Amino acid sequence: MGTRLGELVERLGGQLAGDPNIEVSGIAPLADAGVSHISFLSNSKLRAQAAQSGAAALILSAADDETVSATYTGARIVTKNPYAYFARAAQYFASLDAFVPVPGIDPSACVAAGARVAASAHVGPQVTIEAGAEVGEGAVIGAGCFIGRGAVIGAGTELFANVTFHARCRIGARGIIHSGAVIGTDGFGFANEGGVYIKIPQTGRVIIGDDVDIGANTTVDRGALADTIIEDGVKLDNQIQIGHNCHIGAHTAMAGCVGVAGSARIGKYCTFGGAAMVLGHLTIADHVHISSGSMVSRSIHEAGQYTGFYPLAKNAEWEKSAAIVRNLATMRDKIRALEKTIKTLTEQK
Amino acid sequence: MGTRLGELVERLGGQLAGDPNIEVSGIAPLADAGVSHISFLSNSKLRAQAAQSGAAALILSAADDETVSATYTGARIVTKNPYAYFARAAQYFASLDAFVPVPGIDPSACVAAGARVAASAHVGPQVTIEAGAEVGEGAVIGAGCFIGRGAVIGAGTELFANVTFHARCRIGARGIIHSGAVIGTDGFGFANEGGVYIKIPQTGRVIIGDDVDIGANTTVDRGALADTIIEDGVKLDNQIQIGHNCHIGAHTAMAGCVGVAGSARIGKYCTFGGAAMVLGHLTIADHVHISSGSMVSRSIHEAGQYTGFYPLAKNAEWEKSAAIVRNLATMRDKIRALEKTIKTLTEQK
Amino acid sequence: MGTRLGELVERLGGQLAGDPNIEVSGIAPLADAGVSHISFLSNSKLRAQAAQSGAAALILSAADDETVSATYTGARIVTKNPYAYFARAAQYFASLDAFVPVPGIDPSACVAAGARVAASAHVGPQVTIEAGAEVGEGAVIGAGCFIGRGAVIGAGTELFANVTFHARCRIGARGIIHSGAVIGTDGFGFANEGGVYIKIPQTGRVIIGDDVDIGANTTVDRGALADTIIEDGVKLDNQIQIGHNCHIGAHTAMAGCVGVAGSARIGKYCTFGGAAMVLGHLTIADHVHISSGSMVSRSIHEAGQYTGFYPLAKNAEWEKSAAIVRNLATMRDKIRALEKTIKTLTEQK
Repeated sequence: MGTRLGELVERLGGQLAGDPNIEVSGIAPLADAGVSHISFLSNSKLRAQAAQSGAAALILSAADDETVSATYTGARIVTKNPYAYFARAAQYFASLDAFVPVPGIDPSACVAAGARVAASAHVGPQVTIEAGAEVGEGAVIGAGCFIGRGAVIGAGTELFANVTFHARCRIGARGIIHSGAVIGTDGFGFANEGGVYIKIPQTGRVIIGDDVDIGANTTVDRGALADTIIEDGVKLDNQIQIGHNCHIGAHTAMAGCVGVAGSARIGKYCTFGGAAMVLGHLTIADHVHISSGSMVSRSIHEAGQYTGFYPLAKNAEWEKSAAIVRNLATMRDKIRALEKTIKTLTEQK
Repeated sequence: MGTRLGELVERLGGQLAGDPNIEVSGIAPLADAGVSHISFLSNSKLRAQAAQSGAAALILSAADDETVSATYTGARIVTKNPYAYFARAAQYFASLDAFVPVPGIDPSACVAAGARVAASAHVGPQVTIEAGAEVGEGAVIGAGCFIGRGAVIGAGTELFANVTFHARCRIGARGIIHSGAVIGTDGFGFANEGGVYIKIPQTGRVIIGDDVDIGANTTVDRGALADTIIEDGVKLDNQIQIGHNCHIGAHTAMAGCVGVAGSARIGKYCTFGGAAMVLGHLTIADHVHISSGSMVSRSIHEAGQYTGFYPLAKNAEWEKSAAIVRNLATMRDKIRALEKTIKTLTEQK
Repeated sequence: MGTRLGELVERLGGQLAGDPNIEVSGIAPLADAGVSHISFLSNSKLRAQAAQSGAAALILSAADDETVSATYTGARIVTKNPYAYFARAAQYFASLDAFVPVPGIDPSACVAAGARVAASAHVGPQVTIEAGAEVGEGAVIGAGCFIGRGAVIGAGTELFANVTFHARCRIGARGIIHSGAVIGTDGFGFANEGGVYIKIPQTGRVIIGDDVDIGANTTVDRGALADTIIEDGVKLDNQIQIGHNCHIGAHTAMAGCVGVAGSARIGKYCTFGGAAMVLGHLTIADHVHISSGSMVSRSIHEAGQYTGFYPLAKNAEWEKSAAIVRNLATMRDKIRALEKTIKTLTEQK
């Protein structure tokens, strides 16, 4: 019932060293893999562990293969990027017993006359789709989702249960939006008159490219006048907040709990650690990496890794260091005074 | 199909300098505005740009009008607060092609016998309204919303799709609650007995005033015994957490991802930058402004701007500064030792 | 219509000093309690206030009883842990007028053939339950919830309205999941190939023990290959994010807005203040307490309280201290130079 290694290599590439008729039924980590598993070595530090692995086959790089093959007796698939190969192999095995929703519209769904749902799309129970919305070929709309007037869901895109996708927003092909995400909610825009806030209507949209993943309970504001843009291949984890009129460059990834204030312009191929925050109206260059828990309070024009969080300590030690942090100006003044006194002392000699 | 400037001024006030028969069809930023647009100048630094604007008309202050009118040849609407005027004008133009939900209850909604829904209210598809709940005149309940037993939604208030509004909570008139928000969830209250938590029932409510906006996926806890209070005109952005028994004063605004722990008492006219955090049982005076990413760990009795986040740096520099922060006490001791030595040296002279 | 003190003590234990026939109708704080209330003293600092309380009865410890009984003339219930006793008494009074959902499945719910719902369970309106899912005895599934294929909801567990509980995940008995929570969403796992992310299928589950509470809009990722584990008695507040393959030990509690990155292993009896963050792949020992707003960036092997957030200051002062924090290395170098100069000066003598 497994998959022949020969077939796997035919599908996914790589050079097979070993019997193509060996059958594997799934992927497992090095430590857990048994005779029906394929495993992978993506970190050379684990070569010794890989060499001892009970896996039927190993995915690894040419550089590691030389060492590992000296003692490891199973089959090997040699490839440039073993971790990417693992991801594709895992996708393949997951697809074998994946649940595939049947095309069609559940009878409990409310689909407005004037909405267009492709024949190959699936619309689950308790869904609402408003007039003028479009759901592309092979798209999957999970139970309880809401799709507003004129919104467009691209081909092959999946909305998990209970996603809210507001009017006129668009997502391209092969995207995933996880449960509880809200796309196209109003941006936070107000004028203040004598202390009282007057709402500025948010009439822009959210425009999302192809191959974009959006995590559970993440929120993306629609633009005020212009649109909020998320380019191809962006990956957003859970509970992220993207403000109105942001522009996020292609293939940028953000871990959970990140917040980006309005009108920030973020480059391509950036990464943001969990709970990193970005103030509004900033520009961040391509290939910038922000560490977890860091507050980006100014634009960044140079690629690189940036960090800014208070180091953790035992509470008693923190209390000491925090008290000094408050009074660093005093400390600086004392040093200046010392420098002056010493200068005098030295000159007197 | 546009609106005559004369009509706009009749509706919204301001002094028109120019032809009242000029027609405008919408609002645009200074840089993008063309002959069918009205634009606005709310920041005197942009006077030069305004003077060059292609807009048919400009909203601006008397102070800016003198300079701008020297070169700008379009019509001008002179008003005290151009940004507030812009907001109202934008509301007007948005209303012209806004979708207006039809009064009535969608057949797929489950409205309990004993719930009272005003005839002019709209209840969307897949909604649940429990017994004893009230929905006021002109209120709009979006698809998939839940309104618990005895809850009250005020006149003209709109709940976007997939809002959860729990039993016995109340919101006043003209409010907006965005998708995924949860109002009246249990506060986090437990007694601890030998390491095991025993739940304290949360029997209070959430009471929300008029003209309050609550953002997408924001959560507001119900009170433990007494109520959680949000006064008139408060504006909460997305993904904010308000703990049980908090009291938020009128016209206070919080940006995305702010967290407020239980029983905090926050004044009127305050602002909180994104991801600011407030510990429990604190009191914050009126007109306090907390910067983004700052942790409020003590009560604040004086109006003003408060800040506390670690400054961002290149990672290598941060590693250096963070290592020193951990050891600030050592640095302080060294300075003390130097001061002592120098005192001795000086006295020896 | 109240409850006799004698009956209360029979149910909940404790030693009654006073008339067992006194009737009380509910619990109130010391300051508000009147003749129909029972109140409690859980903090010895409030002894004086307790002694003046107008409550019909007081719950207190033997240590406090001696002092308080000298002047307080109402009845007293003496018990080891008055706060835990208060919690149980509050539960008792809340149960008297609690709304109890009727067993059965609302006609608007979509329950797949092949799902098993216990006869004593309640399934609310607009719910979706997929094939193979199980809902235990006395469980309550609120309006609009989604329960995926093969998921298991334990006996007596309650899902408030609009919870998403994904396929194959499990929660034990007597749990509570609040509105908007998403259990079993995909973890954030990708391989990177030439800048482009390739999704790693998330085929693990979320396994939740007994007596676990999960807050509103909290998200818990399913494991990548293995499972995400939340042990018995864990209490998670609102808007918490738990990454894939985390393991959270029994009776650990986390306040709102906490984030835990993937594969973190957290001990038993820990507490996390609001907005605390934990990086991935860390180990945290039992009985560790993390202060609010602190970033845990390394494993913690020793019980205790840990803290790390930038102290709040008036903005002008923060600007000064933050500028110095950036340049702490310069300050350290100056001190070293001073030390050297002084050493020379001293030696010259």
